[in-house]
Parts: sequence; structure tokens; C-alpha cells
Amino acid sequence: MIQASEIQAGGTRAKVRCDELGGSPYSDQADGLFRPYLGPAHRATLGRLAGWMDEAGMSVETDAVGTIIGHYAGTTPDAPVLLIGSHVDSVRDGGRYDGILGVTLGIEAVAHFHRHNRRFPFALEVIGFGDEEGSRFSTYMMGSRSAAGLAQTIDDSVTDRDGITLRKALADWGLSTTRFKTARRENVLAYVEAHIEQAPHLERAALPLGLVRGIASQYRYRITLEGQAAHAGTAMHERRDALAAAAESITAIEAIGAAGPDDLVTTVGFLTVENGAPNVVPGHVIMTVDIRAVTPGVRENAARQILEALEAISLKRNITLSVEQVQDLQGALCDEALNAILRKAIIDTMGYTPPVLLSQAGHDAMIMAHLAPMTMLFIRCAGGISHNPAESVENDDVEAAHRTLVSFITRVGEER
Amino acid sequence: MIQASEIQAGGTRAKVRCDELGGSPYSDQADGLFRPYLGPAHRATLGRLAGWMDEAGMSVETDAVGTIIGHYAGTTPDAPVLLIGSHVDSVRDGGRYDGILGVTLGIEAVAHFHRHNRRFPFALEVIGFGDEEGSRFSTYMMGSRSAAGLAQTIDDSVTDRDGITLRKALADWGLSTTRFKTARRENVLAYVEAHIEQAPHLERAALPLGLVRGIASQYRYRITLEGQAAHAGTAMHERRDALAAAAESITAIEAIGAAGPDDLVTTVGFLTVENGAPNVVPGHVIMTVDIRAVTPGVRENAARQILEALEAISLKRNITLSVEQVQDLQGALCDEALNAILRKAIIDTMGYTPPVLLSQAGHDAMIMAHLAPMTMLFIRCAGGISHNPAESVENDDVEAAHRTLVSFITRVGEER
Repeated sequence: MIQASEIQAGGTRAKVRCDELGGSPYSDQADGLFRPYLGPAHRATLGRLAGWMDEAGMSVETDAVGTIIGHYAGTTPDAPVLLIGSHVDSVRDGGRYDGILGVTLGIEAVAHFHRHNRRFPFALEVIGFGDEEGSRFSTYMMGSRSAAGLAQTIDDSVTDRDGITLRKALADWGLSTTRFKTARRENVLAYVEAHIEQAPHLERAALPLGLVRGIASQYRYRITLEGQAAHAGTAMHERRDALAAAAESITAIEAIGAAGPDDLVTTVGFLTVENGAPNVVPGHVIMTVDIRAVTPGVRENAARQILEALEAISLKRNITLSVEQVQDLQGALCDEALNAILRKAIIDTMGYTPPVLLSQAGHDAMIMAHLAPMTMLFIRCAGGISHNPAESVENDDVEAAHRTLVSFITRVGEER
Repeated sequence: MIQASEIQAGGTRAKVRCDELGGSPYSDQADGLFRPYLGPAHRATLGRLAGWMDEAGMSVETDAVGTIIGHYAGTTPDAPVLLIGSHVDSVRDGGRYDGILGVTLGIEAVAHFHRHNRRFPFALEVIGFGDEEGSRFSTYMMGSRSAAGLAQTIDDSVTDRDGITLRKALADWGLSTTRFKTARRENVLAYVEAHIEQAPHLERAALPLGLVRGIASQYRYRITLEGQAAHAGTAMHERRDALAAAAESITAIEAIGAAGPDDLVTTVGFLTVENGAPNVVPGHVIMTVDIRAVTPGVRENAARQILEALEAISLKRNITLSVEQVQDLQGALCDEALNAILRKAIIDTMGYTPPVLLSQAGHDAMIMAHLAPMTMLFIRCAGGISHNPAESVENDDVEAAHRTLVSFITRVGEER
């Protein structure tokens, strides 16, 4: 018989541990949290996590690309593995719970079963990926891509902002880019990731936890508009104004996003006017376009409309348009069978039928979906704020997540 | 009897002198031309100009704000003064002829009359202003504003980008901000300024010289649009996107400019997205709006329409709008009687009736118009390009300008 009070402590501990990992030596930034891939803070964090995994009855290893894995054996040596995890890296000026909370919650779930000496016909593994955010190199999701066997090659010559190559960063950890394929996992039963919502829907619904229908596919483009810089006295009809072309394009991009299905979002988040000055007609503008949608095909359709609009606007204005696709992140739908189990776990634990949310943010889960059935548990966070020191979760909500994860794993064990 | 060949030499010399002043020690920039107000290059330039003025029979002084003045006496001691000039300062990475050519042409005109021992019932003065471009301090046209008596106070605490105050910069020259009112001129007959066109209309018309109808009035605004930064996954209808609001505003500003009279131009030349990133809905945008028109009232009408449009767009999008007027430069029309004389001078010298141009760029002449009748002579420049090392004028065109100025001054003398 499980003691409710004991499980209660598990959620609190998971949160307190994130708080501890929110500062020195677990951050490479003096005032706030920054935990880039393969940096000193990342290494210190893996050391601390390994200690906690060990306490929770797991054997610990770090794979060829710096992913930490705690193993809690199943009832048979060749049992498949249920992976419970998230990422341990953080953007600059990040929050204390983004990613890492999914790892400490995983440890607490295993600790619970370890305390009760409970084994399943599958192994439990807590997995902490190091490169979800892409906050150091132009790589991203190196850990999950290697685990899922999606990484065919690794560009080990990419550098961070200090000029350190990925090859050097890995070598400093005693790792080698030539061994990344050894990180590929086999015999994986499922992957479950608990994560703060990073959106305000749970808060608005006044509910601590939610299911996830899927993770959006993303396209990202870098757009260059080249007109002709000119004195601000140039007659209106003689201009080739790159910013005016960008403005018309942004309005079109917004309209296409607004006219699409609810899960479609389109964003121009970055724009710069090269050599911009109040008295100069802009000759050169660079901007980004980000397109996201969960429903398969919606992203592709929006991208086609947007690129057609950009071409028409540029043609009309005699502007030279360059479009570079800089990201194509394939989204994923959560596994329906796993979602059904997670729904039951939430109903049992919390007494309400959870809402089904969309994840517009990317997660390692979208990569792991290529390897095994995947599901996610979203946890309410204050104001939906993330990637920000103001990121905040309620203790009770983390306790709820802990109880739900324990229930979910138990149910997976019962249904096998 | 004037020798044509001799006048010919004058134009060439005026241009060659600009070329000489285009480099060290007349530039404060190693690779190119930058001659900011009251800098070392400015001082070296005044020294060189003083030598040339002296050779041309002028007595030389520098006024209380660093304007160089060469005086060539009239037939009587109390004769009024015909001022011939422009500015000697240059923007960073500037061209060799913008401004300074009007000063070297003035010297050549006086040199011509000096050689022929010709005096007029008015004095001739060549005047070189030091602060037309505002390229060092946030002040602008300090020289002409002081000469015209428009400067009521001078904010001598403003600093350049190195933190040097205007007070200190003046003191380094042995000047004092408290004496600027002594620069005010009395008994001025007229002001004439020869300047490169900084627009391509003369080039397109295949004509070396043109008249000027007037100089545009300018408003400049700094616009801040404040929405709410958010994750790029935020639903379209929940956004308060500051860049989307800016985009709609820019399109409206362009349309208002295009729908107005031919002499109206509207420009958004500078825009920055604060903390812009591909995956963030922009929360904060700063941009500039520049409005210019020659015909009185047109600028004011356009400004009213633009501000109404900005307010409507911001209101609709729940964006906080801040508008700061950072420049209000009153334009001026050239004096009709002076323009008639200049027209005759061009017809006599060149054999064609000159086109009448608009100046969308600001000039010291617009300030001097408050003091005395004013006219300008525009000289063709390659591609209309200015504020750029590629700025270029043809030797023959400068010779034409020299002959025209000599003819103009002679005619003013005959008509008095």
C-alpha cells in the first residue's frame, strides 16, 4: 500500500531539486540560469543527477553525446525499456523548470518504485538530454536525435560563440563525434516526457495537468529582401523600399496564419534593416518566418501560401527576394494508446478529465516519436511564461504530476 | 574682358581642392571622409580654406561657433553683404563634394573678381558652416542658425559619442557657447549656395545645373509600439504583436506618401525589434517616420493623416503607441527674384533654360532664408548618390557652376 504522504514528498523533492540546479555551479551565468550543452554547468548538473539516480536505485551512464541515463532494471534482463525524461540544458536567462523538471520527476517516480521494491516486465530509465534548446551550437536535439538513430552525420566543426568547436567540446568530456551512433537505442517500449506547458491554457482552465495531442511541425525561413537604398527625399514612385516590402509581407504572413486552422501559427519574430537610418530609404532587410502546426499538412500548406505571397509582393515592388529554409522540424502526434493510459492516470489521481493541448514548442519527444510510441504530460506554469527567470510552477501541481507519473507507469505495467 | 580659359581653371581648382580635402589630415577617419563639427579634421580644413581665401583677396575670420568667413569688401565700407557658401562638415563615410564644393566654388568666384580688381556695391563673403549634418552632436545647423539669429539657446551639455560635451569642444577651439549670439549677421543682401543635387533628376535630364524651387520642410518622429512578447506558439488571436502593428503602419505611411502631392515623401528608414528572435512574437518595436514636403502645409497634412493611422492601428491591435517628434525643420522657398537672376545666368552661360528642382535634403540655405533672400544652384552628381564615398561630379559640370556663379554675382551687381 502506497502512502499518500510519501508520494507527496516526491513531487516536492523534484521541484526543490530544480531550484537547487537553478544556480551556481549548475549555471554558466552569474545572475540567473544558463546551462548550455557540454558546458561546465552541464557537467556539474550531470554529476548531481547521477547522485540522485544512484540513491533512487539506478545504475547511471552517460552516452556518446552527453545524455545521462539512469537504469532501473525490469523483471527480466532483456526487458524493453520505458524511457522517462526530458532535457537538462537551458537557454540563457532561462527558467528553473523547463526540461529539468521532467528529469527530476522521472527520478522520483523510479525512487518510489525502488522504495517499494517494485519491478515491471520492462526496465525504467530516466533520460536527460543535453542539447534540446540549441543554446550553444547551431545543432539542436543532438541527444534525442542520436538516441532515436536520426542523426546520420554530425557536423563537428560547428562552433559556439567563443569559437569552440563541437568536436572540441565533446573531446573535453572524453567523448568523440565518431561514436554518436552508439547512442542509438533499441528495444524501447515507450517514451514519456513531463514538461511545463509554456503556454497559459492550463492556467486559464484552472487545471494543474493536461494531455498533449501532438507537437507542432516547424518550418523556419530566413528571408532577405533587397531593394535600393536611397535618400529619404527620393520620390515615392522611384523607390525600391525593402522595408515597405517587408511590411506588406508581414501583414500577409499574419493574415495567412489567422485564416488557417486553430493549430497554425505564423510569426515574423526577427527583422533587421541593414544600415537603417531615419533619412535613408531601406535597401536591405533580413527577417525570419516561423510556421508551426500540429495537424499534418497544415504547415506545408501555409508555407506554400506564404512563399507565394512573398514572391508576388517582391515582384510587384521590384525587390530581390531570397528565401533560405533554416529549419524543418517534423512534429509528432502523441500515441493514442499511451494518451488513453495517461488520461486514466489523471482521472484517477486528480478526479478530472484532462484537456487535450497542443504543443507549439518543440520537445525531445517529437524526435523520440521516431523510435517509439510517445506521450507528454503538461504541467501548468504561471502565465505560460518560460525561457525567462520568472518561470514558476506550483508545488501542488508538481505533486500532482508525480502522482500521475507513478500511476501511469503502474498502469502501463498492469496493461502489459 | 574675362578670359574663358581662366574661368575654366577656377572650376577645376574648386573640384581639385575638394579632392585634397577628402583625405588626411582633413578627415577624422582613416579610410574615407569623416569631418565632424569641431574635430581635428574640421580645424585642419579651416586652416587650408583660410589660406585659399587669403590668396583670393579675402580677410578671414572664424565666428563664435566655428563658421569660417572670408570677406571681400564692397565699394563702400557699410555695403550690404552677398553671402556665398555651404557647409564644410561631412558625415561618416561621406563624399568629397557634399557641402564643401559650395565653399571652394565661392572662393573661386571671389578669386575671379579679385584678379580683375572688380568691386561691387556690396561685399562678397564666402561662408563655411561647420555643423550642417549634425554628424557629431545632436545639434544641427548650429552655424547657420547662429548666423541667422535663430539660435535662442544652445544646449552646451550635449555630448558626442565619446562623451565630449559641445561646451568642451567649443572651448578646445577657444570658443564659448555664451558668445554664439555674436555670430548673428546684419545687413545681408542675399545668400546663395551651390550644392550637388543629391538626387538623379539632373542626370536623367542630361543637364549639368538646375534651379531650386525650395527646400522641403521635415518632420521626424520616433515611434514606439509596445505589445506583448510571447512564444511563437501563441495562438494568432491571442497576440499583441508589435511588429505586425508596425508592418501595417508602414504600409499606411507609404500609401499616404504616395497619395499626396509630388513633393511629399514619407519614409520609415529605421526599425528595430527589441529582443527579436525567430521564435518570439515581438513585444516592442521602435521605428522612425520622416515626412518631407516643399509646398507649405503639405507636410502638416501628411503628418496628421499618419498619426491618425498609427493611432487607429494601435487601438485596433491593443498596442501602446508612443510618438515623439524629434525634428521639426522648417523648409524654405527660394527667392523668386534671385531665382530669376540665376535662371538668366544659366541661360547665358549654358544656353539652356534650367529645370526647377525640389530639394528634399536639408541645407543651411533653409536656415539662412530667415535672414535674407536665398537661392541655390544644384550641380549634377553621378546617380544622385551622396553621403557615400562613391559621390562623384564631372569636372565640366563644376566649371559650368563656376561660370554661372560668376555670371550670377555680376548680374546681381548690375541690377543693383
